[in-house]
Amino acid sequence: MTTSTLQVSKSPVTGKVYEIPADKKDKEGIDAFIALHSGKKVVVVQGLGFVGSVMGLVVANALTEEYAVIGIDLPTPGSYWKIRSINEGVFPVIASDPKIELYYQNALQKKNYYASFDAYAYSKADVIVVDINLDVQKKSAKNKDLEGYDVDLTPFRKAIEAIGAYCKEDVLVLVETTVPPGTAQKIVRPLLEEALTKRGLPVDKIKVGHSYERVMPGPKYIDSIQNFYRVFAGTDEKSAVAVETFLRTVIRTDEYPLTRLGNTNATEMAKVLENSYRAMNIAFMVEWSRFAEEAGVDIYEVVNAIRMRPTHKNIMLPGLGVGGYCLTKDPLLASWARMNLFGSTEKLGQSEKGVHINDKMPVYAFDFLQAQYKDSLEGKKVLLLGVSYLNDVGDTRYTPVEAFYDHLEMEGCAIHLHDPHVKYWEEKDIWVNQDLDGLLEDEYDVIVITTGHKDYRSNAALLEKIKNKPAAWVYDTIGVLSNEEIRSLKERHVVKVLGRGDL
Amino acid sequence: MTTSTLQVSKSPVTGKVYEIPADKKDKEGIDAFIALHSGKKVVVVQGLGFVGSVMGLVVANALTEEYAVIGIDLPTPGSYWKIRSINEGVFPVIASDPKIELYYQNALQKKNYYASFDAYAYSKADVIVVDINLDVQKKSAKNKDLEGYDVDLTPFRKAIEAIGAYCKEDVLVLVETTVPPGTAQKIVRPLLEEALTKRGLPVDKIKVGHSYERVMPGPKYIDSIQNFYRVFAGTDEKSAVAVETFLRTVIRTDEYPLTRLGNTNATEMAKVLENSYRAMNIAFMVEWSRFAEEAGVDIYEVVNAIRMRPTHKNIMLPGLGVGGYCLTKDPLLASWARMNLFGSTEKLGQSEKGVHINDKMPVYAFDFLQAQYKDSLEGKKVLLLGVSYLNDVGDTRYTPVEAFYDHLEMEGCAIHLHDPHVKYWEEKDIWVNQDLDGLLEDEYDVIVITTGHKDYRSNAALLEKIKNKPAAWVYDTIGVLSNEEIRSLKERHVVKVLGRGDL
Repeated sequence: MTTSTLQVSKSPVTGKVYEIPADKKDKEGIDAFIALHSGKKVVVVQGLGFVGSVMGLVVANALTEEYAVIGIDLPTPGSYWKIRSINEGVFPVIASDPKIELYYQNALQKKNYYASFDAYAYSKADVIVVDINLDVQKKSAKNKDLEGYDVDLTPFRKAIEAIGAYCKEDVLVLVETTVPPGTAQKIVRPLLEEALTKRGLPVDKIKVGHSYERVMPGPKYIDSIQNFYRVFAGTDEKSAVAVETFLRTVIRTDEYPLTRLGNTNATEMAKVLENSYRAMNIAFMVEWSRFAEEAGVDIYEVVNAIRMRPTHKNIMLPGLGVGGYCLTKDPLLASWARMNLFGSTEKLGQSEKGVHINDKMPVYAFDFLQAQYKDSLEGKKVLLLGVSYLNDVGDTRYTPVEAFYDHLEMEGCAIHLHDPHVKYWEEKDIWVNQDLDGLLEDEYDVIVITTGHKDYRSNAALLEKIKNKPAAWVYDTIGVLSNEEIRSLKERHVVKVLGRGDL
Repeated sequence: MTTSTLQVSKSPVTGKVYEIPADKKDKEGIDAFIALHSGKKVVVVQGLGFVGSVMGLVVANALTEEYAVIGIDLPTPGSYWKIRSINEGVFPVIASDPKIELYYQNALQKKNYYASFDAYAYSKADVIVVDINLDVQKKSAKNKDLEGYDVDLTPFRKAIEAIGAYCKEDVLVLVETTVPPGTAQKIVRPLLEEALTKRGLPVDKIKVGHSYERVMPGPKYIDSIQNFYRVFAGTDEKSAVAVETFLRTVIRTDEYPLTRLGNTNATEMAKVLENSYRAMNIAFMVEWSRFAEEAGVDIYEVVNAIRMRPTHKNIMLPGLGVGGYCLTKDPLLASWARMNLFGSTEKLGQSEKGVHINDKMPVYAFDFLQAQYKDSLEGKKVLLLGVSYLNDVGDTRYTPVEAFYDHLEMEGCAIHLHDPHVKYWEEKDIWVNQDLDGLLEDEYDVIVITTGHKDYRSNAALLEKIKNKPAAWVYDTIGVLSNEEIRSLKERHVVKVLGRGDL
């Protein structure tokens, strides 16, 4: 007896609902696409997320070569709609970069970007670009002790095994995923060689390389791939040469020269080191902003003074917390790799600590608020301005607003959300209000600025509206309000800016 | 029965030996100096070290006002010679900056820079600039557990009390010393008010401010005071105004505008935060360079690739360790202040940890070397290239070479030292050889590059000499050697570069 549950996948872009086919084959579709492009090299992009879907677009619009591009993702509720959407003429990523639509229309016209879920596509590929996610499993943000984590490579290994089961013996597999250092050399290459051996094929022609992207969703989405510096390496000399040859066809290497490193451990390390550096610099400021509060010091004025030194321009500011896909996990990938792939008995303790400190920032911001309501926060009406983790962009991946929201919710607050760039908060499955004026018709116990969007900065009309309300608290968690704005709000409100002790 | 031991003070600049007078009075000298400059404001600089002696010079060469400057230091063996030297026409600081001699000759001609040891000078001062040291007591570098430290404010308090015992009731006391945040407000001002009260004087006219210098001994010594951004604050409004007025007369504020912060806690914090940030960024790289070695990665190539990003230009490189007067202690001053002056139960844990990690860097560098000689390092002949902590400058204060040297010495090595910028290593009371050619006539078991002086970089003649020797080891602790140089040395030597695993 089998239960046939029909699985569906819904597009958050169009609202359209797709039935996921029971038959997971698409040989016909792929063959038909390939037939359209005979003579062209085939590039398969594995993973149609924030990086892969746009990387596919960039390859379909390559600078010096015409490629046939196939994007591959899994036929799951979370991903199947992306496949259908690409094939139906609706790009699955909403972004403020106009080049996205331009590049997509161009690909539609050339019919050279096809999407599928069938691993059969790998058998046609000359180049396979790996852009799948590799996640870290952390303790839930609802838990105040946030120090535990785990790295489970199973999904990543499966994805590589799927390639190995189909790929040509001389394919180039270019890993772009941010991986634990050592992965290309110690995991990807051995898995592919094992699969080729099983298939009775030689293993000396396969090429495996790593190059890391620095994709920034936002107004320069395409440029962050095509017009930016790339670092790459191969697991052997011919792999490195193949990676370089491929990258030169898609990236503006005349203006942004490629950097080749000695081995893939080095490129993999460079990416996670880069992000760990940034995460650590934020964590560093957390302690100091607490100290500033204790000493009646405005940390923003101190940091601005320090930034006058050219050598200290990059000192970070405190805030609600750290979000996004990279800074929140890359230091942990590195530390995990050090112990699990290179057998060190030491972790990257400081870098791990940095992530844990950052993860606790929204909890600290919440604790401060809670301390103001000694009886209870229950039933308090709270308006959060911003759910994205990044200013002026609608990206909610690992946003620190989530932990803040969760704690308010656990305390029984009535929470209202605004974000001009986020209609639907995917991770929480909540619709976000975009009508700030409408929201401000209402009254709140606390108005919290949680993202530094332009809409909340130097917005006189917004300030005027808040000033004329009987709200008890205005809580700026990221230093958006100017001294003058604070003074004017203080006539009727209690104003608190995190990290500013002397208000 | 009293023993009269004659105390002397020897100038390391001229070799001249001065007898320290038993009578610690200099009223006549001071009065005579003041008489020469009637009508001029008197500025007393307290402390004639690396900062104070040159600050005195800058004030004596003020831009928009003629000051009579008195430098004050203690009549101790370590400091008395500076007083005599200034009055005898030999500036007590050797520096490559030609402006030092220019400014000094100008002051000699105007006879407006006098030095003394008598606190009576404070009674004549309109402005007193505090430039004395405030040290942190750490565990000895010879001890491998370097986590303990203490801050003893006694000498600093005594210096402020000496001012309070003599100063005019409306003097401006401008603290430039790097102090624990809170010092101007919680220590300096109360001590001065107490002293004035004891003397039957009002306390409402005294002005106390803080402004931090960023003096860099070296080729731009004077400019690092006169042509650089200053941050300042006062303990009250009139103090802040007085500080600003004074600084405008000595600093090129048209090109380097002053920044006034809300209170002296903020300026004091800015200075130690700035240095903690840098110390922390170095400590961060320590772990990663260990990881790089384990993974066969060249950390220098990785860091250079990361620096291509404008936001990551300031990422630091690993090395032998961290030296100098600031980065080695300022994070500890801050952490101490947080707990001892602001009553926090939390220290600045990350910043403290950064200092401890940095302090252990030379020990790690030594441990690596020791591991290569499993039997013993005893009797090994070792040449250290560089004792200064800074490239191309002769500054040995808290140089990391010291801990490295100490460990070699404890193991019974025969150590030879070279540094083109250091004749005499004051802290260790050792003379340093400056004849590199002569030193290389000899043979060594290990040649260690310990400072990144230009003399050791891309120096073909030096390389040729080393290549032709039968030395067993060339140990580059700071990444001075290029790949090509390493290859050529490897023909006959074992070469190790700290942080480069894939050599």
